[in-house]
Formats: sequence, structure tokens, C-alpha cells
Amino acid sequence: MPDFTPSSYLNRQIRLADILVRENISALALNPGPGLIYLTGLHFHLMERPIVALFPANLPIHMVLPELEIPKLEGLPFEVHAFPYGENPETWSRVFHQAITSAGLNGKVIGVEPRRLRVLELRYLEMAAPLSKWVAGENILAELRIRKDEAEINKLRRAVQVAQQALQATLSRINIGMTERELASELVIQMLLHGSTSETSLSPIVASGPHSATPHATLTDRPLQAGDMLIMDWGANVDDYFSDITRTFAIGEVDPKMTHIAEVVIEANEAARAVVKPGIPAGNVDLAARSIIEKAGYGQYFTHRTGHGLGLEGHEEPYICAGNNLILEPGMTFTIEPGIYLPGQGGVRVEDDVVVTDKGVESLTNLSREIMNVGHVK
Amino acid sequence: MPDFTPSSYLNRQIRLADILVRENISALALNPGPGLIYLTGLHFHLMERPIVALFPANLPIHMVLPELEIPKLEGLPFEVHAFPYGENPETWSRVFHQAITSAGLNGKVIGVEPRRLRVLELRYLEMAAPLSKWVAGENILAELRIRKDEAEINKLRRAVQVAQQALQATLSRINIGMTERELASELVIQMLLHGSTSETSLSPIVASGPHSATPHATLTDRPLQAGDMLIMDWGANVDDYFSDITRTFAIGEVDPKMTHIAEVVIEANEAARAVVKPGIPAGNVDLAARSIIEKAGYGQYFTHRTGHGLGLEGHEEPYICAGNNLILEPGMTFTIEPGIYLPGQGGVRVEDDVVVTDKGVESLTNLSREIMNVGHVK
Repeated sequence: MPDFTPSSYLNRQIRLADILVRENISALALNPGPGLIYLTGLHFHLMERPIVALFPANLPIHMVLPELEIPKLEGLPFEVHAFPYGENPETWSRVFHQAITSAGLNGKVIGVEPRRLRVLELRYLEMAAPLSKWVAGENILAELRIRKDEAEINKLRRAVQVAQQALQATLSRINIGMTERELASELVIQMLLHGSTSETSLSPIVASGPHSATPHATLTDRPLQAGDMLIMDWGANVDDYFSDITRTFAIGEVDPKMTHIAEVVIEANEAARAVVKPGIPAGNVDLAARSIIEKAGYGQYFTHRTGHGLGLEGHEEPYICAGNNLILEPGMTFTIEPGIYLPGQGGVRVEDDVVVTDKGVESLTNLSREIMNVGHVK
Repeated sequence: MPDFTPSSYLNRQIRLADILVRENISALALNPGPGLIYLTGLHFHLMERPIVALFPANLPIHMVLPELEIPKLEGLPFEVHAFPYGENPETWSRVFHQAITSAGLNGKVIGVEPRRLRVLELRYLEMAAPLSKWVAGENILAELRIRKDEAEINKLRRAVQVAQQALQATLSRINIGMTERELASELVIQMLLHGSTSETSLSPIVASGPHSATPHATLTDRPLQAGDMLIMDWGANVDDYFSDITRTFAIGEVDPKMTHIAEVVIEANEAARAVVKPGIPAGNVDLAARSIIEKAGYGQYFTHRTGHGLGLEGHEEPYICAGNNLILEPGMTFTIEPGIYLPGQGGVRVEDDVVVTDKGVESLTNLSREIMNVGHVK
């Protein structure tokens, strides 16, 4: 018997079809990634062989994929019309044409996901459906996914737990002289040992000393030194759901200016969490954090938005940025991560993962936000 | 003084400019990934904020990127004209327009990388340069990257060593009853401990029992059982270069048919490695492996090509597939990975990483290819 629980793939496909009809879009075309996982549970590597699933409003899924991936379609609890191709790329466009023709989509409006679909898949689709109109379909996926159900929130909760446990196991291993890269590896090892999946990149940010002034710092071989601020920004993945946490640490004695900006950032984080509740615009959460930092005179050094949604993607809707009028609703999950970055000196960021509840907000993260002193001489 | 060694970024940018002039292409447009790393060493996360580097044939790099990524451009040994944008997506198209205008590219032919560029970046570029013609530029990047220099081969060599050491450390930890997922985590932990980077997904394939009949199996919680064939397909990443190895194991007593197909696969792997030398078409390597498997009567169960290039990408040119007339040259690096997959029963794949030398071939991998018996009762 088909499974129609809220999290069931079939139920999600039916909700998608309803939205497509409402929006006058004939189909959604997805390549491998979180949208496809949400709707089907299917995982593929994103490689040089194009894989596209067409979700027509009133037909079964039509899927173009390499022959060698066919075993993954066995025993699915919903119908998939497969269009497999062999290893010779010259045959691929014909197979795309067959799939588009079978679904009757040439000339129709087809939604795509600009952040995920590559020019590779787009060109094959355009050749197969030259009369079609291609429209941005990310809002459709966001509408489906933005309110997490209880099963999804539990996966996020577990992803947060794994990340927090991994950090706690890592803290005692931090030594002066170890490099950012070594510390990042240790943290990933601890995440794997605590139950994060190895299927996804878990690359943490470990930014020490002046590097902590770069919000998206890449790992280097810089050794940790006394006097460093140390930003660690990491997350685990459990059952395809991502957590995303940042804490800032001090190694030995640090500049009092850094201690001061840390106090401001922690206050901004608290203020933003305090305003979250159903019915307010997402932009208000950004405003709450930003006004604390601006009042303290560091507005120009808070160079990014306050947060982003969290779920099957590490960054997704809702975006917690100035001017976003999206109204928060129960089940929305996002980060709150204000920061202050003083070029050449260092930075502080404190990031929590929260879920909007019926009456307010719950923080899934509960690690202390205070700047902890870490690092002993080896 | 600028660095003009063969591996220097400036030298690579000059080689690119020469090819662009020859091909009558005005610029190459790249988003974050291996192409950008090859040409600049710059690493960015691929996210919802579009980042595009324009490489015009006769001008410095023009780069559109978020303000928060600007610190990464400090101290580069080459010129980058930066076009930063803030957090409000409504301002982004204006910044793309500024970059295209400054580089004088509207109406010009611009190369893109279909496997990497997303519809997101393409749409911003198309809006900024509505009169331009967009052409597939992956052959340009392949021409630049397909022959590895000594420094690159050494990075691959190290990536192979790390992967091999990690496997050896993992073998004694394999127990009957542990799940595919647990074994994959253990292998990734060992890769991190042996020096692989945490910045990239290292997701191995661990396919046991009937799952080993799926070439691209995804991890499951299936416990290893006596009688299983066990395919492990894994690779490390060192200094941005990937290794990619597969070995097949037997747990306890296995069906003699499996032992037989293993012999055929190992013979096919040997035959393919034996024919590699400069001057022959890539397709001949596929043919050498395939004819052994066909002669043994398993042709229809070898459902993929014999191999793919290896370097800054886990899959890149040259593709070792039937009919590929590309002539092998010294410095080309690729996998040789024939397999036989019997649906519902199990499969065998044996994969090596090789480099074409002046006179023949060197296998970077040197783990035994025999089917080893692993797994003890816990």
C-alpha cells in the first residue's frame, strides 16, 4: 500500500503537482541534489553524466540517467519512467528527446532550479524541448520544503547533537602549534565517530588569528598561536540534514578589543534569537542583530546577513537578511550567526540553529556561547 | 618578481589567453571549482551567492563576488579586478553588468564550462551581456589541464599513497556485522589521519553482497555477511588532487562464480594497463579491457567505460571509453577500472590510477589486486 504519511515521497510529489497546477507550470526538471532527495529519496553523484528527473504535474516521474544507475530505481514506492543511456555521449541527446516527448513537454513551461541545474543539463533539455519556456522553480521547492515536519526537525536535532558532541571531543585536543588544517581534520573525524555521514563534505571553517577576520576563510597550514582568536564553523549531516554551528575561542591572552567585540556579537545573537516567533518578517531577525552591532559602532564590520535556512541544504530558504519580508512560520529552521570582522586583526562569530515553534523559538544548539579559552602547549 | 614556473598561476593564465586568441573566444567565465583553482589557486564554496571569474584574453581577471569573500583576493601574485556585491540579491545583476562592461564583453563570444557553471550564473551573465554568444569551453580547460606536470603528478602520487595507507589501516578493522556506512566512515577517518584534506567530500563506495552489483552504489546500513563480495571504491585528496582506487574483497566463503569473474576482471585490468603508451587512442585501452570480459562471456555485465581522467577532479578528461580517438600523451593520468556486475548476485571491480610516461605507463597504485579475504567475527 502506498505510504501517504506527511514525509512520504508520494505525498511530497502530490503536493508538488498541486503547486505546479496552481502556477501553470507543466513540469519541474531536477538534477541530483536536495530537491531530488526531498521528492524521491534518490541519491546520485553529480558528475559528467547528466541525470535529470522530470516531474510533470499529471504523469509519473520521467528520468534520464546512465544505464549503470538503473539499479537504484528498483523497488521504489512510486512510479518512475526511466530513460537510460549508455557510455557514448553522442547518444545522450536522443534519450533526452525521448523523455521530453514521452512526457509531452516540448513547448510547455518547465521549472528549473538555477542554483543546482548546470548548463550541461540545461543544454540537453533545451535541445530536447526547443519550444519550451524555462522558468526559475526554486520558489516551488522552497514552498514545499521551508516548513519542516517533526521527522525532519528530529533529523536536524540529531545533526546538531552529533556536531556538538564532536566539538566537545575535539576541544581537549587543541594544542598551540597545531595547524588549522589539522584541527579541521580532527573535528571531521570526531563528527564521523559520533554518527555524521561520510557521504557529504563536512569541511569546517577553522580560522585562526588574522584569518578569523575572513568570514569564509579557507583552511591553511597556519599554526595556532597564543593571542589568536579562533573561529570554528562546522556542521554534521545526519540522514541528509545539515547542522551548522559557529563558536569563537581565544588562545591564551587575547587583545581586549577582541573580548569586547565578542560581547557585542553574543548580545546580537541573543537579541536576534529573542525576536524570533511566528508572524514576524525574517528581516526583523536580521535587524535585531544588526542594530546591536551598529549601536556598538561595528556596523561596517558585520559584512554578511544574520543567517540562512537549514535542512537538506546547508544554506537554503529562509534567508535572514535585511528587507526580507517573508513571514516566519512554525517549522522554519535557520541559523542566527552575527559576526564582527576587523581586517588584519581578527573576528568573532557565534552561530546557532533555531526552529520556529508555535509560540516562539527553540534553539537546537545549546553549547555555551561565551568565548572559551582553549589550546595548551603540546 | 612574478613566478613563471610551469605550475605558476600566471603561466597558466598566459597559456589560457593564447588558446582563447587561437579559438576566437573573447573570455572564459568560470565559477568556483577545479578550473578556477587551476588558474588562480582560489577556493570558494559553491553556494547561493554567485561567484564568476571572467578571464578575458587581453585583460586582467574580472571577478564578481560577495563582499565577504574580498579578503581572499589579498596578496595574490597576479591582478584581479574585483566587482564585489552586498547581501541584497537585487543589486547583484548591476554588479555583473559592471564587470561585463568593464571587460568590454557584451556581444563577444564567451566560453563557459557546462559541467560546472550553473543556470544561476548563466542567467546573470546573459542579463549582463545580452548580445554575447555562449560557447562550451570545457575543451579549452581540458587542453590546459590534460597533461600533468611533475608537480601535479607528485600531488597525485601523494593522494594515492594516502588512500593506500588508509585502506591498509582499515582492513584489520573490518568485522562481520559492521555496516557499509560504518566501514565507509572508518575509511574516511583513516584518510584524514593519513593526510587527506577535510575540505572535499571523500565519500567512498562500500557495496556489500548484492549491492556490489551496483557500480555507483550508495551507502546503506546493510551489515557485512559471510559470503559477501565487498567492493570498496575510495580516494584521497592532497593539495586539491584526487586519487581513486577500487579493490574487491571476499567475506568468508564466496560463490565460485564470483571468484571466476574476479579472475576475469583482474585479467582485463592487466590487459588495459599493458597497452597504455603515448601515441595510442584512449579507446584502445577500453577495448583491451572489454575484449577480455567479452571473450569470457560477461560483456553485457560490464556496463561502464574502462576509466576516466584524474587530477583536480575525480572525473575529468581523458575518458577511457569505446571510440575515443584522443591520442594518449605523456603526463596524462587516468583510472583503469573494469568491472563485472551480476544483478542480484554481486560484482567485482578493480581500479588503478596510471600516468602515461615517455615510453609507456606507470601505475601509481600498487596494492595487490587479488581478491583478499577480509572480515572476522567480532
